[in-house]
Amino acid sequence: MPVKVKILSHNKTTTAEKGTLLADIISTAGINLSLYCNGRGLCGKCFVEIVKGDPPACDAQEKALLEQRHLGKNFRLACKHRITGDVAINIPATSILQKTPVLETGLRLDLEVNPSVKKYALVLQKPDLQHPYSSLELFERSLRKKGLYISLEVLKKIPKTLERGTGKITAVIFKDFEIISVETGDTTGDNYGLAVDIGTSTLVVELVDLNTGKSIDTQTANNSQMKYGADIVSRISFTYMDPKNLGKLQEAIVGDLSRMTKQLLSKNNIKPTHVYEIVFAGNAPMNHFLLGIPVNSLALAPFHAAFQSLPELSAQQVGFRINSSGKAYVAPNIKSFVGGDISAGLLAADMTARKGNILFIDLGTNGEIVLKKEKRIATTSTAAGPAFEGMNISSGMLAFPGAIYKAERKKRLTLHTIGKKPPEGICGTGLIDLMAIFLNQGKISFKGVITGKNKEIPITTNISLTQKDVREIQLAVAAIKSGIQMMLKIHKLKKDDLDGIFIAGAFGNYLNIQNAMTLGLLPSIDPKKIFFIGNSSLAGAKALLLSEHAKQKTEALVRKIRYVSLATNPMFQDYFIAALDFGWRGDSQ
Amino acid sequence: MPVKVKILSHNKTTTAEKGTLLADIISTAGINLSLYCNGRGLCGKCFVEIVKGDPPACDAQEKALLEQRHLGKNFRLACKHRITGDVAINIPATSILQKTPVLETGLRLDLEVNPSVKKYALVLQKPDLQHPYSSLELFERSLRKKGLYISLEVLKKIPKTLERGTGKITAVIFKDFEIISVETGDTTGDNYGLAVDIGTSTLVVELVDLNTGKSIDTQTANNSQMKYGADIVSRISFTYMDPKNLGKLQEAIVGDLSRMTKQLLSKNNIKPTHVYEIVFAGNAPMNHFLLGIPVNSLALAPFHAAFQSLPELSAQQVGFRINSSGKAYVAPNIKSFVGGDISAGLLAADMTARKGNILFIDLGTNGEIVLKKEKRIATTSTAAGPAFEGMNISSGMLAFPGAIYKAERKKRLTLHTIGKKPPEGICGTGLIDLMAIFLNQGKISFKGVITGKNKEIPITTNISLTQKDVREIQLAVAAIKSGIQMMLKIHKLKKDDLDGIFIAGAFGNYLNIQNAMTLGLLPSIDPKKIFFIGNSSLAGAKALLLSEHAKQKTEALVRKIRYVSLATNPMFQDYFIAALDFGWRGDSQ
Repeated sequence: MPVKVKILSHNKTTTAEKGTLLADIISTAGINLSLYCNGRGLCGKCFVEIVKGDPPACDAQEKALLEQRHLGKNFRLACKHRITGDVAINIPATSILQKTPVLETGLRLDLEVNPSVKKYALVLQKPDLQHPYSSLELFERSLRKKGLYISLEVLKKIPKTLERGTGKITAVIFKDFEIISVETGDTTGDNYGLAVDIGTSTLVVELVDLNTGKSIDTQTANNSQMKYGADIVSRISFTYMDPKNLGKLQEAIVGDLSRMTKQLLSKNNIKPTHVYEIVFAGNAPMNHFLLGIPVNSLALAPFHAAFQSLPELSAQQVGFRINSSGKAYVAPNIKSFVGGDISAGLLAADMTARKGNILFIDLGTNGEIVLKKEKRIATTSTAAGPAFEGMNISSGMLAFPGAIYKAERKKRLTLHTIGKKPPEGICGTGLIDLMAIFLNQGKISFKGVITGKNKEIPITTNISLTQKDVREIQLAVAAIKSGIQMMLKIHKLKKDDLDGIFIAGAFGNYLNIQNAMTLGLLPSIDPKKIFFIGNSSLAGAKALLLSEHAKQKTEALVRKIRYVSLATNPMFQDYFIAALDFGWRGDSQ
Repeated sequence: MPVKVKILSHNKTTTAEKGTLLADIISTAGINLSLYCNGRGLCGKCFVEIVKGDPPACDAQEKALLEQRHLGKNFRLACKHRITGDVAINIPATSILQKTPVLETGLRLDLEVNPSVKKYALVLQKPDLQHPYSSLELFERSLRKKGLYISLEVLKKIPKTLERGTGKITAVIFKDFEIISVETGDTTGDNYGLAVDIGTSTLVVELVDLNTGKSIDTQTANNSQMKYGADIVSRISFTYMDPKNLGKLQEAIVGDLSRMTKQLLSKNNIKPTHVYEIVFAGNAPMNHFLLGIPVNSLALAPFHAAFQSLPELSAQQVGFRINSSGKAYVAPNIKSFVGGDISAGLLAADMTARKGNILFIDLGTNGEIVLKKEKRIATTSTAAGPAFEGMNISSGMLAFPGAIYKAERKKRLTLHTIGKKPPEGICGTGLIDLMAIFLNQGKISFKGVITGKNKEIPITTNISLTQKDVREIQLAVAAIKSGIQMMLKIHKLKKDDLDGIFIAGAFGNYLNIQNAMTLGLLPSIDPKKIFFIGNSSLAGAKALLLSEHAKQKTEALVRKIRYVSLATNPMFQDYFIAALDFGWRGDSQ
């Protein structure tokens, strides 16, 4: 016999069969309830107020949750109770599923907070002579799940924890499958993780509250592997010189990140034992270095990594002092040099959900290109070289204070420097602006020849652009451009078929789209279709940290991505040579 | 359209739809094929000879298996090929599923060899520029399984293993889920495990070939924890004196077993790296000591263990130097003091499959009793004390050379000693024989009173039985007897309703059934229903080592077993006092 359910807070009335779970009724009414513990009555996030009708009896666990949440005696967990008669309920705002923003730059990605690591405060039953349940069984009964995994280390802690915790015990559960920690008292409020972007030159660590998804603090530092080689290739070579050198690279990165983590935690008064997971996003060689895995296979054709997706590793084994059973997740590599920074980036850009033909480009020393055409998705990488990082350019420099990062020509040339310091050199985006201006002025021909007699264009008294500089930029642009063109060609797309171009990487918002198009670095399409998504690698790492589903989605995606090898394609040479001419030459090539 | 399949070797002809898997056809014909790798074409155990009809093409992996097995070119894997036309086949005997005996004492248990650890020789595909598969992906593709778990340690070994292994690579797979080792060359022949029985006084390690299930060698030694306490209770007390003492007990047992393992392996020329799993069966306190888990909860009411079933642990973490990714499995505890020795014993006795009402008794310092009545199963433990081990008996001794283990009275008293040495004392089975003889002779009354004036019965010149000795035995017998009687009572069974009594433990075949019945240690039923199953704990450990299914079955069984607390039962005192009278007093009590 159907009963009537009034949802006063949402001004809805619905009917349901007697015995239907309250959570199911609410879901059927189109309201997204927070079901953090998968409906096992453990998290207390789905409390609703029974306004009319008899609130059913509740057990010790539910009572404890009521107390903890300071709720009235008419509140009940929607995931636990079945309807026996007509009721009227109120759903408090706190019981509605919340989403948290992970990417807000250029594009937006909001995620349901559903991390791999969850904490539950438990009211453990006591064994008695008739029911001498083992301690571990008591945990499993409280957690309403059998056959949970537990390591010997955590198991050993159980007896002491039970002795101390006369009242509540907090269990930290990983992937709904492993008890990774048992803690005395209610420590559910302290659940933290770290999202890490491992760049070749810059490292970023973000401290995240795994309960709310909120970012607490961020720390940035230089990658001290720099001392063993400025770019990836030289670091790979370095590991070839002496087998011990891989260890040096690993020590450098683990040392950097450990220091940053320590500072972040002490600054924010968070105990390392309350940090349970670290997610790393970095390119393929960087994540090999991090784990101390030889990069031999990335050094020689056919350039393949040791792993694509990895299971969760022990953070301690990777070298990090967070909770001793804490986990380390590495954003999966895709193929060859297209690594975890890109898979994280694709997640942050929500590539699987985007409709139409989408080009994802990460502009760096290696230009990584991902093209999604309807449901198919492919990737390639192209060696742009370090010109955009200011390397091999006479007045080039990294994007540090004093670097010309922007140039405009209205009546005369206007230069903008980082930190408004006197100009000391030119960084990537500045180079692109200057090149475009000089191309437009005719000071450089589309073949890349400086037309003046000096073969050098002065910019300030001590900064100029030489013919050799132009050649370097020409090669870098051609590498990216021919890569994009080949990807379009292989997928039978013209530039105007593109519905979006997502640009990830350090250039960020400082890249002038029009100027990039003038050079041919980007196809000349409607600029409204172009989105700078900033450090999508870090945003992706954060998404992986906050969402078990994001991990699964990303692992499924990387398996699906086809790799396009430019080097072995007989057309590539022709495309590359043609691409040396500045500008985008339509789709006829 | 159906096609005809002649199975010449089995003189059978069957039909099947075109496209049916050969393995399925054979199975439908009622022939049990060996499908060790779950039909993934990896193990080469299901080769059949195609006698008529065209053998389908085979891939590199199958070719390699053909070579390895030295089979003709017409042999094909039944698990891989589908039938496209009429065929005639021969199934060689080696492709038929074999069972191996695990228990042969008293009862019989034959098991299909299906261990958690399996080895496969792989022919890895090579990555190329168009398909730069990661090394781990290549393994997964060869193993025909995605998302396998791998530890960082094993992952790190992959690049070197691939470099060295120009031809074949062997992968060691655990539970069809984790790559626990990668080895160069074909090492599939070397797959070993250890079954360990941890007795309070005696340790047994059995070295087992995980490919064939055959026992290779066995080593027995005393448990050197003896120096910290002869019995379990004194060892538990020892851990209370100083928190460090738990570590001492752990070191003793791990040290003993490690030494025994080392000797076994070196004697049999087996590398420790080729040993991948150890299964331990021991009573609850012993497996806590082994793992270094505090036994506090076993020392005080309600006497509960820290764990029932445990997931597989790292053997290295437990302290054993076998393969560095090797596993350690602990036979699950049931409840309270009823531990892993009993769960292993129930497995060896195949309790789940036995029909009718079965009583399983492990006679020791603690008498563990399990009663199965139809589908219900319950257990209890009763403190018999160490009398049966010769402790607290004036002339008592352990079953060492010189011990009277058997006594008969035809015309006069005949004594049998272990090793046919001059008698030095009496061990458990000898005590039972002597007691029964004296009861029958009237030298001891059924109330346990020595009827002669001396209150001491001389046996040899220096060995006798005192009134105090009789009292000790009386208490020990009463503990077991009242336990059995309570279990029967609670389950509404009379002794003659029992279809079998399985007796496990050290007494083995030396226990004289008739004499045990005279004392009332066993109910007086048809002796044909009584089976001595010897060291069923070790046999169970071996079964767990050889069969993943046995592990699952045992874990399911222990969850099902209900615990009966004798101490809290108001009837127990009465039963115990009544049981002090020797003999079995029918079912009226």
